[in-house]
Parts: sequence; structure tokens; C-alpha cells
Amino acid sequence: MGSYNQTVVLDAIRRSGGLSRVELAAATGLSAQAVTNICRRLLAAGFVQEAGTTNVGRGKPRTLLRLDADARLAVGVHVDPAVVSVGLLNLEGALLAEERVATPSALDPPRAIATITDAVDAAIAAGQADRGRILGVGVAAPGPVDLRRGVVANPPNLPQWHHVPLRKDLAATTGLPVLLDKDVTAAAVAETWWGSPGRGGTMAVLYIGTGIGVGLVVDGKVVRGSSGNAGEIGHVVVDPDGPYCACGQRGCVAVTVAPVALVEQGRRAGVLDARTPSDTAGAVVALFDRADAGDVVARGIVEDAAAGMARLALVVTNLLDLDRLVLGGPFWSRLEPYYAGAVAGFRSGAAAHQIHDVEVVGTSFGEHFGAVGAASLVLDQAFSAHPTALVEDLRDDSPRARTRRAVAS
Amino acid sequence: MGSYNQTVVLDAIRRSGGLSRVELAAATGLSAQAVTNICRRLLAAGFVQEAGTTNVGRGKPRTLLRLDADARLAVGVHVDPAVVSVGLLNLEGALLAEERVATPSALDPPRAIATITDAVDAAIAAGQADRGRILGVGVAAPGPVDLRRGVVANPPNLPQWHHVPLRKDLAATTGLPVLLDKDVTAAAVAETWWGSPGRGGTMAVLYIGTGIGVGLVVDGKVVRGSSGNAGEIGHVVVDPDGPYCACGQRGCVAVTVAPVALVEQGRRAGVLDARTPSDTAGAVVALFDRADAGDVVARGIVEDAAAGMARLALVVTNLLDLDRLVLGGPFWSRLEPYYAGAVAGFRSGAAAHQIHDVEVVGTSFGEHFGAVGAASLVLDQAFSAHPTALVEDLRDDSPRARTRRAVAS
Repeated sequence: MGSYNQTVVLDAIRRSGGLSRVELAAATGLSAQAVTNICRRLLAAGFVQEAGTTNVGRGKPRTLLRLDADARLAVGVHVDPAVVSVGLLNLEGALLAEERVATPSALDPPRAIATITDAVDAAIAAGQADRGRILGVGVAAPGPVDLRRGVVANPPNLPQWHHVPLRKDLAATTGLPVLLDKDVTAAAVAETWWGSPGRGGTMAVLYIGTGIGVGLVVDGKVVRGSSGNAGEIGHVVVDPDGPYCACGQRGCVAVTVAPVALVEQGRRAGVLDARTPSDTAGAVVALFDRADAGDVVARGIVEDAAAGMARLALVVTNLLDLDRLVLGGPFWSRLEPYYAGAVAGFRSGAAAHQIHDVEVVGTSFGEHFGAVGAASLVLDQAFSAHPTALVEDLRDDSPRARTRRAVAS
Repeated sequence: MGSYNQTVVLDAIRRSGGLSRVELAAATGLSAQAVTNICRRLLAAGFVQEAGTTNVGRGKPRTLLRLDADARLAVGVHVDPAVVSVGLLNLEGALLAEERVATPSALDPPRAIATITDAVDAAIAAGQADRGRILGVGVAAPGPVDLRRGVVANPPNLPQWHHVPLRKDLAATTGLPVLLDKDVTAAAVAETWWGSPGRGGTMAVLYIGTGIGVGLVVDGKVVRGSSGNAGEIGHVVVDPDGPYCACGQRGCVAVTVAPVALVEQGRRAGVLDARTPSDTAGAVVALFDRADAGDVVARGIVEDAAAGMARLALVVTNLLDLDRLVLGGPFWSRLEPYYAGAVAGFRSGAAAHQIHDVEVVGTSFGEHFGAVGAASLVLDQAFSAHPTALVEDLRDDSPRARTRRAVAS
């Protein structure tokens, strides 16, 4: 049945001023029983409220369900190699506040945790949010993550982070329930919730940050894999003539089309120089600015990258027979003019192109994708009929919370 | 919930001389209600029978459920580029009969259908099977397939097959219900049913035939993708220094490690010659025989192939964060001594290798993998709580069959 039936119902409520259960069944095509069950969960999770009644014909009055957008809030913490973005999201998907801090080194873990905690508190304060309404904190981190322990393991893109127990430590410092997932999982959850609610189907979200990863959705369900680390594509070869990679191969995503690799190419070719911003985001923007300005070398780098992205899109599409490919990340709007056409062009080479087309779209979250995705993890967990993530909740001494902690430790 | 709970129950029954529902709940860890529901479906599908009772303490006697291995049978038709294998499978997974014919050209579709029909009839006769016990015919074909229409679309590995409506035509000639899936889907279903029943988890089955494809299982469910064409990996680059491919890239699976490409390499290098069998299977065996005999060139080809397979295993493992990788195909036993070590070696480079290991195993079906997989599609369909495949059933004029045909046409 999949949780996407539930997002269909929530979405129908969200887009209306209020609907009865009978109207919801008609609007969604779900059975009355399914709608009743889903509404029970929505009410229990505090996502909707019963708000008045409506009379239809002679039958008994029907209770209206209405979204109370600010009844519950979720905090999202997106740990990017350069920036930690903290967002406060309401049930409509509106970002009420966002704070950003430079990603701390975790060579001093307590200090890193304190920096992130301060950003969480600042976002809650900026959104003037009642802490009692906050469902929890979702953390999206680069892989590999250790979901069972709630640990950011040893990400190649976070060289100073070694087995940081982020879930447990943040639960202690914030006093809020905390869950942790890989960054691309959060992106996939966000697209399932807000980008194409109830669409079901098979989708990939190519998330372009410092590196590139992919969030996967199969038959409407987000794919986490065996340990929460699905979506690793850094060593897919997209350019056989590309540079050598530490893995022993040539032309991997990690050394060709990953933004950090584009910057490296730009510096080596002299397109970027000492005046270029030192951070990846700033340097990527500078590279694309040079391409816009007609610099032939910059344009070559960017066009090769677009071709590589198209190749990557083809590999993922063929492996999973995708319905839909979404591209996004903090500077997607800057990349889009160069990438969108090339990436869409791969479709005629897809193995199943004679059977069906693949929809290729950019995400609508822009630079907020990370924080929105991380916060969406909390909504997904609170709302899901079958919660899958492990939550660290130090507030609650209920048997359930104790069991969860026992499982997680 | 996934159908893997059901395979757990069937497997428990299969391995016992007979179990009561209470014993099944204890043996599987499922709830009494879940066991009752699953047993109802097993009884309805004719997979098990109620067979006597057992007394435990003072309670009322418990009804025993026993597998009736030959109560229902399934026919599997595996369409390989060179050979069509037709198997007759019972409910224990025993292959009661297998027939093989050279894959007919489908430039004359009625003749091709007649050839396959004759092989089906021969297998049924050889197994001395009562036609009334046959649940149906499962067809596994190279992709792309058009699941909605039941058509083998235009497979690059079957150059003379263009949009053959195999499902409908075989239903007409055999008088049996027929379903069609991609070959790698059948392999994944077979591994879910017989290889690791009830294991759940995330698994890939690398099927090595004329080409190489991958069957995918995510959280215990077989992945078909948008149109039933998931698992296409022919254009994953595994050797950046490899030969050019028609797709415009270099070193793709299709031109490097696919058996048909190995044979091509062997012929070009003079390791294989005019005396080598002309079929891919025979030529691959000849190539590996030469490697065994110490031929340096043959050994180089084989070792490069093993390295390429390891690379492919890494790409799939990282993308889906696999628990388990299964390798198989008609001549797997011949390849295994060269491939198994190299392929298992990739694991230390997997993105999540610090978190968990990946189990790498060869399939136990050997050369029968194709026919067993195709027949398993029928059992999966008959048994599943939520059948997903479309069945062409011209025997039955029930409203359900008419609806199915309407959907399928």
C-alpha cells in the first residue's frame, strides 16, 4: 500500500480549505476504510484537525478535516561539507526560518555539536516557534552513515568527521527527538512529500552538492538499502577519458562531474584563480559565470560536465527503469541552463525508451533543498504507518522510547 | 509486509512434514492473524492441503498444513538469444522436466510461436503432468519488454524479434494462462522464492547469459521499475580503456564483460578459431578451457572480465546498499573459479563497507536458472497477496479474466 497513499490524503487536505472523509475518498480514489485509517494517523500525529461539519443532503453531518499548518513543526539539519543549514518547516512545507553556519570540524566533537545546537536554537527562535510543537529534528548527513547507531561514520566529503554519534548527542543537547538519515534519502523523502505527493512510481533524485548522490524511490517507497547508505554513485564512470580516481578507475563521477571536481578542473585550467572564492559553492558559481561570459575553457568544462551528468542519468534510469528523474541541490538554478537540455537528451538512449518516456525535472526547493529534506524526514517518520528510521528521544521515558533507544544503542 | 512473509510460511511448510498454524506462527515469528491470512491464500492457490490434525495438551486438535508438491505445477519458458528452455516446476521447486530448442527467428512469428508451443507440450508430456494442475506459463524474455501489452519489444540480443505479442499468442496456442516478464526479473523472483526465501533485504542477481543483466530486490520486493524493464546495465562502463560501444562510450558491460563480448575478444586475439563452437555458450566454455590450459591470452581476457565484473558489482552494491549479491546464469559454474574471488574482492571498496559486509554467492540453479526463474513467475503470481503481473488467460471467460484482458490489451 505504501505511505504514498497517505501523502495523497494529506496533499488533498492541504490543497483544500477542508474536506470530509467521504470527499477525501472521492478525491483520492481510496477506499473509505483506507481514508479512515489514514485520517486516524493524521489526527494522532497532529497534522490535521477536525474543524466543523458540512451537511450533504439528508445524511448525518460530515466532519471536516483541515490542515493546521503550524500545529506541528519539524527542524531539519543538513550537514553539507561546507555549510550546515538548519530549517524550521511547517506542515505545509513552508520554511519558517533558516540558519546557516560553516560546517564545524568534528575533530572536537562537543564543539561541533554545540555549534549545530546553537543553529537549531537560532532557527527555532527566528521562527518564533513553541518548542512543544516541534515533532523533532531530522539530520541529513553525507554517507556513509550508521543508521543503527545514529552515527556519521567516515564520510570522504567530511574529512574531519570520524564516527560522530550525531543523533544521540543532538538529542541530548536539544532535548528534542532526533533522527538521522543519509542526505540523498532526505532529498528523496522531500520529493515524495512535496515535489510529487502521491505520485508513487519509480524516481531518482540527483542531488548535486559538493559531490553528487542519488535518492531513490521505488514504487512510491524511499529506498534506504541495507544500512541506509543507498544512492552512492561517486564511482560510476561517466567519462572513460577522464582523470584517474583514487578508486583505481578513470572518469568516475567523483573526479569529473562532482562540483568539487569541476572547481579542480577550473583551477588547473586557469579559469579560476586566487580571486575565486575558496568554497566549492562560490567557485562553482564563478566557473559558470565564466562560461556565461563566453570563456571557451570554462564552457568546455561545463559542457563536458553536462554530458557526464547525462551519462549518469542514463545509468540510473536503465538500472531502475525510472518514471521520473529530479535534479537539484543548492546551486541547481545556476547549473540548470547548461545541464537540463543535455540531461533530458539521454532519454532517447534509455533501454525502455520505446515503451515509455522519462520525465526529467529540476527540483523546486532551490538552495533550501537540504534543510527542507532533513525536516521532511521528521514529518515522514511522524506520519508513516510503518516508521522505519530510528529516533533518539531522550525526553520520553515511555516503554516505547526505551525500546527504541535499546534498539538504537 | 511484502510477499516475503508468505515465502517464509511456505518455506516452513515445505521443510516440515506438516505444521499447524500455531506452530507456523512460532516458527516464523509472524502473528497468528498473519499466518491465518497467508494460509488462506496458500490453500486457495492449491499450494498446501489440510492434512489431518495434531493434539497438543487439552486444546482442540490443530489442523496440519502440508505441502502437496505436485498439486500444482508451473511451466517456465526462458527465451535466451540462443536457446529457449522450457521447464516444468512443482511446488517444491523441483524441475520435473526440461526441454530445449534453438531460439527460433521471429521474422515468421507464427512459426516461432509454434516451436515454443511444441516445447511446452513436450515438457508437459515428459513430466507426465495433468494439464489441469498447471497454474500457467511464465515467460522470461530479454528486455525491453512491454509488460502492459505482453510484448517482447525489440531486444538488441534478439535481432529478429520485433514486437512479438508472445503472451497473447502463447495463451492462444497452449490454452494456458500466460504471463511475461523480463529475464532478470524472473531470476530475482527465483532467488526470492528458492534461493533465500523470507530473507527480505536488498539483493541483486547478476544474470550472465549472452549479455549481462541484473535482477533487483529491495526490502524483499522484486523491482520491476516503471514498465518492467529494470535491471538494464549493458552500458555501465567497467573498463575505461575498453573498446568503443555503439552507445558512444567506451568499455561498457555490453562490449567488455558480456559473454558475447568475451567471445568476440577471443576470436580477435586468435584464441578462438574456426573449430570453436559458433554459439556463445560453446565459445565461452572454449575460452575458459583455454584459460584453464594456461593460454596467456585467454587468461588475460578472463581476468580482465573478472575485474570488470567486480567493478559492476561495486556500482550496483553502492547504488542500492546491497545485503547480498547473487551471480548466476547457464554457464556460471564454468566462470565461477575465475570470477568469484575477484567479484568478492570488490567489497572492501564498497561505500558502506565499514558498516556492514555484502554476501556474495553463486546461484544454486546452474544451467536451469532460466527455466526455473520463468516458472517461478507463475508461482509468485498465483501466491502473491497483490499480484502485479498481467496474465493472458484465454481459457476463462470469467469477468476477472475479461477485465484482465481488457487491461492488457
